[in-house]
Amino acid sequence: MGQIDMSKYAIRTDLAIEAIEVSKAKDGIKSEEENVLGVKITRVDLLDDGIKLLNKKKGRYITIEFEDVTDTNEKENVKEVFSMEFKKLLSYLGINENDTCLLIGLGNQKSTPDALGPAVVDNIIVTKHLFDLGTVSDGFRSVSAISPGVMGQTGIETSEIIFGIVKRVKPDFIIVVDALASSSISRINKTIQMTDTGIHPGSGVGNARKEISRELLDIPVIAIGVPTVVDAVTIVSDTINFLQKQMAYNKENINNPANRLIDPSCVDYTKEEKDLSFEEKSNLMGIIGTLGDDEVRQLIYEVLSPVGYNLMVTPKEVDFIIEKLSDIIAGGINVALHKNVTDI
Amino acid sequence: MGQIDMSKYAIRTDLAIEAIEVSKAKDGIKSEEENVLGVKITRVDLLDDGIKLLNKKKGRYITIEFEDVTDTNEKENVKEVFSMEFKKLLSYLGINENDTCLLIGLGNQKSTPDALGPAVVDNIIVTKHLFDLGTVSDGFRSVSAISPGVMGQTGIETSEIIFGIVKRVKPDFIIVVDALASSSISRINKTIQMTDTGIHPGSGVGNARKEISRELLDIPVIAIGVPTVVDAVTIVSDTINFLQKQMAYNKENINNPANRLIDPSCVDYTKEEKDLSFEEKSNLMGIIGTLGDDEVRQLIYEVLSPVGYNLMVTPKEVDFIIEKLSDIIAGGINVALHKNVTDI
Amino acid sequence: MGQIDMSKYAIRTDLAIEAIEVSKAKDGIKSEEENVLGVKITRVDLLDDGIKLLNKKKGRYITIEFEDVTDTNEKENVKEVFSMEFKKLLSYLGINENDTCLLIGLGNQKSTPDALGPAVVDNIIVTKHLFDLGTVSDGFRSVSAISPGVMGQTGIETSEIIFGIVKRVKPDFIIVVDALASSSISRINKTIQMTDTGIHPGSGVGNARKEISRELLDIPVIAIGVPTVVDAVTIVSDTINFLQKQMAYNKENINNPANRLIDPSCVDYTKEEKDLSFEEKSNLMGIIGTLGDDEVRQLIYEVLSPVGYNLMVTPKEVDFIIEKLSDIIAGGINVALHKNVTDI
Amino acid sequence: MGQIDMSKYAIRTDLAIEAIEVSKAKDGIKSEEENVLGVKITRVDLLDDGIKLLNKKKGRYITIEFEDVTDTNEKENVKEVFSMEFKKLLSYLGINENDTCLLIGLGNQKSTPDALGPAVVDNIIVTKHLFDLGTVSDGFRSVSAISPGVMGQTGIETSEIIFGIVKRVKPDFIIVVDALASSSISRINKTIQMTDTGIHPGSGVGNARKEISRELLDIPVIAIGVPTVVDAVTIVSDTINFLQKQMAYNKENINNPANRLIDPSCVDYTKEEKDLSFEEKSNLMGIIGTLGDDEVRQLIYEVLSPVGYNLMVTPKEVDFIIEKLSDIIAGGINVALHKNVTDI
Repeated sequence: MGQIDMSKYAIRTDLAIEAIEVSKAKDGIKSEEENVLGVKITRVDLLDDGIKLLNKKKGRYITIEFEDVTDTNEKENVKEVFSMEFKKLLSYLGINENDTCLLIGLGNQKSTPDALGPAVVDNIIVTKHLFDLGTVSDGFRSVSAISPGVMGQTGIETSEIIFGIVKRVKPDFIIVVDALASSSISRINKTIQMTDTGIHPGSGVGNARKEISRELLDIPVIAIGVPTVVDAVTIVSDTINFLQKQMAYNKENINNPANRLIDPSCVDYTKEEKDLSFEEKSNLMGIIGTLGDDEVRQLIYEVLSPVGYNLMVTPKEVDFIIEKLSDIIAGGINVALHKNVTDI
Repeated sequence: MGQIDMSKYAIRTDLAIEAIEVSKAKDGIKSEEENVLGVKITRVDLLDDGIKLLNKKKGRYITIEFEDVTDTNEKENVKEVFSMEFKKLLSYLGINENDTCLLIGLGNQKSTPDALGPAVVDNIIVTKHLFDLGTVSDGFRSVSAISPGVMGQTGIETSEIIFGIVKRVKPDFIIVVDALASSSISRINKTIQMTDTGIHPGSGVGNARKEISRELLDIPVIAIGVPTVVDAVTIVSDTINFLQKQMAYNKENINNPANRLIDPSCVDYTKEEKDLSFEEKSNLMGIIGTLGDDEVRQLIYEVLSPVGYNLMVTPKEVDFIIEKLSDIIAGGINVALHKNVTDI
Repeated sequence: MGQIDMSKYAIRTDLAIEAIEVSKAKDGIKSEEENVLGVKITRVDLLDDGIKLLNKKKGRYITIEFEDVTDTNEKENVKEVFSMEFKKLLSYLGINENDTCLLIGLGNQKSTPDALGPAVVDNIIVTKHLFDLGTVSDGFRSVSAISPGVMGQTGIETSEIIFGIVKRVKPDFIIVVDALASSSISRINKTIQMTDTGIHPGSGVGNARKEISRELLDIPVIAIGVPTVVDAVTIVSDTINFLQKQMAYNKENINNPANRLIDPSCVDYTKEEKDLSFEEKSNLMGIIGTLGDDEVRQLIYEVLSPVGYNLMVTPKEVDFIIEKLSDIIAGGINVALHKNVTDI
Repeated sequence: MGQIDMSKYAIRTDLAIEAIEVSKAKDGIKSEEENVLGVKITRVDLLDDGIKLLNKKKGRYITIEFEDVTDTNEKENVKEVFSMEFKKLLSYLGINENDTCLLIGLGNQKSTPDALGPAVVDNIIVTKHLFDLGTVSDGFRSVSAISPGVMGQTGIETSEIIFGIVKRVKPDFIIVVDALASSSISRINKTIQMTDTGIHPGSGVGNARKEISRELLDIPVIAIGVPTVVDAVTIVSDTINFLQKQMAYNKENINNPANRLIDPSCVDYTKEEKDLSFEEKSNLMGIIGTLGDDEVRQLIYEVLSPVGYNLMVTPKEVDFIIEKLSDIIAGGINVALHKNVTDI
């Protein structure tokens, strides 16, 4: 199948947790998991050694995972957990309660799957102008917020707009919110990532821009992202993996008389630890069964790209989900930033 | 792999053209193709015999296919071809220039991929109230329009709302516009189907409702649909087919010295007529390579469904595309319905 | 100044409370006032005799008045009072907790000052489809909802659409929500009226349509309205009244040494009971000061209409206010209709 | 009536043409009028002497006046005239066809009467990013565009955001688009003003911000504005003036037998040149009839302000009008800026 040019089919993910899984890297990674209110929290520190391996910058990555934000109860739980973890991150970064904040909502307000950032800006409590006027009460912090748009709307590199504004506003720290690309269908709209490593606007969807980071701006930059889109290559390669996992599960369990009464259409086979053997894979999927994950992705990429079908897609309920996610993130940030805001 | 329960993974398509391709049916089908302004037109008559085979009602199905409605020139061409074909269909159905029309835009205005119908209603020239007042000039027809919403918004069966209104308004014929599900990634947002067989609101996405049709309403019902969503099963099974086609193409062409200078990433292999042999398929894809299309779809369905990953998705540019498509359809209908409207 | 043709400048109001004030009628009117949580409630029963005088149908009119729904605390109080009064009205009309409800949101979603009805529909909990499916839990009532649009969008008389739907859905009672015209600048966006007398779609803005009422539909029809627009004639005639009131107040108070320390720009002179004498009015405002309210309105109408300046206007904050008002009304109705909804 | 504090009731206008009319100033003003396609164009140069008198900066002010942009034909005419005048202004300012442009849309996208600027940005053809990539064809100019939001959304002085961006983008000239306040009900949504004197964001509605001007940015700044809101004081004082004009007109014309057949409700009395005598005014309107325009405005301001009724209002059709106006301005600018854009 010819020589592999890895750059063509780089995994499009901004999630450190996904990059770690895919790379199976272990050195230079400190990681802990916790479950709170049914929400799974993973805190990862990438130390120097881990950087190259994962194509991720060193720093702290906190991921919270959940099932369904359109469920009212679950949504409230996610908001509470997100706010708590966000507060801990502020404290880890040495940010004080009077430090001033600029929140930047990246993305295109006119394109629903890309509108998370602007939607969060719409729901953030801004106070900087009140501080400037001297009319703000105790328990609030100076917060400003902006949606700079995307290059296709403005004609301007988004990082240029941000650098220009940061120079005038001079915040003590920055929060950047963006919609991301996922490299797994299982995480779309089900994961929020926070990191202190900043962000490359547009990096998740393959059009890299200049980064927004502490290195370039000399102040802490917290990036908050949710994967809202996925490409067809990922959908197909995930499905091939799921197929192998299901077969492995069935082999283990189906002939076990204890499982006779379980409806197979309800089984969550993804927890299956055992894998198919090389021979079983080859039997099931021929040459494709014998390829590594990267090779499978490359192959699918080379099938779909020439005919224009490597679509970047989003679940059809995207309007409702962006609404709920922006409410969670803006609400969680409002509580974390202002002592006097309690109605999460 | 157990016995096949076909009902579980029925192809989710409202496009007759797709159903015909998939079924490979030929009897009872009269079909012709034409290319106008770079737009492909397929006119199909399903006669009695073809009905059961395709799970489609007998009647006329006109499909127009195009590449990219965000291209300004192509968009204008599509609008012109659509309007012409729509006029021919009116004439085929014996609809006269003074017959009154009710246009119904199905779907949920708040959900972008489902908002095509309401967006068309927003751009339709309505005149019935002017006829009622006697203040309308020559060259116009009496047209009314309504977006009844979806059951999740109203709590009411959409067909109930429509029947209630039709009974009061008493139009001579009805046009129904809806977003559909596609059974091929190659047709999403690239096809408009018109048919005189009516519509089942919500049928494309698996939640069948009562139909809107001539049989039930006693007047012609023209349904206009565009596939805007596709499920993950379809993305995966399409990709498996594309993989086999590409391999067949490569086998034929790659060792041909004449093709050495062609960049493989630009080749459109989908026109390849030759297929892989059974042995080649089995070699490439193992057991899966030996399954029929239906069996592959069933298998993928059974992999993705238990874990909740048979997502229904839409391309991430959905906002812009719905805007263009609704402009094409509303503009084309306005010209076709009113003699005095010429600015297509 | 010629003979007065009263029909030309009829007060454009749907508020019974305004009609009563203006007409100064007393016979055939039973009225009581209450203050709850800072919100003023007025309950009026128009008995037969009062009808003609006020150009209002006999029935119950409940008005709640408040200052500023963009104030978070006041908004919550208004919602609670509204919900309570709405519940009392249901009970007064003999509506039981299992009676099925159809809510109709009149108005044009695309025109902000007219979008109150559709915005309420967007926030109503609908359940009829769940009852039809048998999947609804205790403590809920069957509720459906629809936004039929306006005649300029649909080409259809709105009452025709509603009658058609009511015939199919067969609710036990109807709630109609609409934006109204006000005949006082002091009530715009500061008053909610509920009545059991039904509604004339579009009546408030001078383009009368067929009414939606118990008489025509044989079931209770509760109309809920908020004045969101006012015409220039009203702004001018209100100002002339305010000017006279202020002068009367100043005459009484300005020379009173006790009032020397009051900043005149903060005085609420509108409570002033005393009026100017005829001579004082004539002195202050010449011929105009000697005209009755109706004559003043007529005069202003005849000045502004020929040159097209009798604008119908809305406060510039209309987007934010419609959002708050629709939240109050939908939230209040949800709690009143469903026993199990408590988060008002 | 006490001593007059002029600052309290300064005329809220950004239109030079209105300021000139009200002030009746003549010295230091060069002015010419023209009528093209039914659109009235007024070009005014304020020379040094005129500045203080009018509270306007010296510079060129071009005003185009029209009746109804919801009329399709008139809208096209206005667009053509606007584009022509805008091109002349570019040329007058010595701006060349390759000079780069930054367009700034002031105002709040979420507040319809204030959304003109952002709506123009949405419809502007931006090209700067294509120039940066080297992929732009001949006949285009480098254009970028941004909607910085308002201080209530961002917490940041809008001028700070703009200065920051200008410093990075370094355009050769700037266009600023904003919704304005009018000091006459006759100009709302019926006037576009262009000027080379820059803009004070928010100045029209009384909350002055730092200005965006050539003096501060060292490049030409063209400000384009449309009055979309008016306060109640203006509505009332305009009406009082109209009343006097109508009376003066009637005195001249009503007893003239030649006018017997004219329907008084259709007469445009505003062209009447003759005024009422002092005695006639006093007779008609008492003390108020004897006050100067400024005194009348002050009086009304002092009546409406203490009770909170000096509402800033907008015509109720605001949604449709902002849509048409933004199409006119963006379309006109696109044609004026890019040689290759002709479809106005």
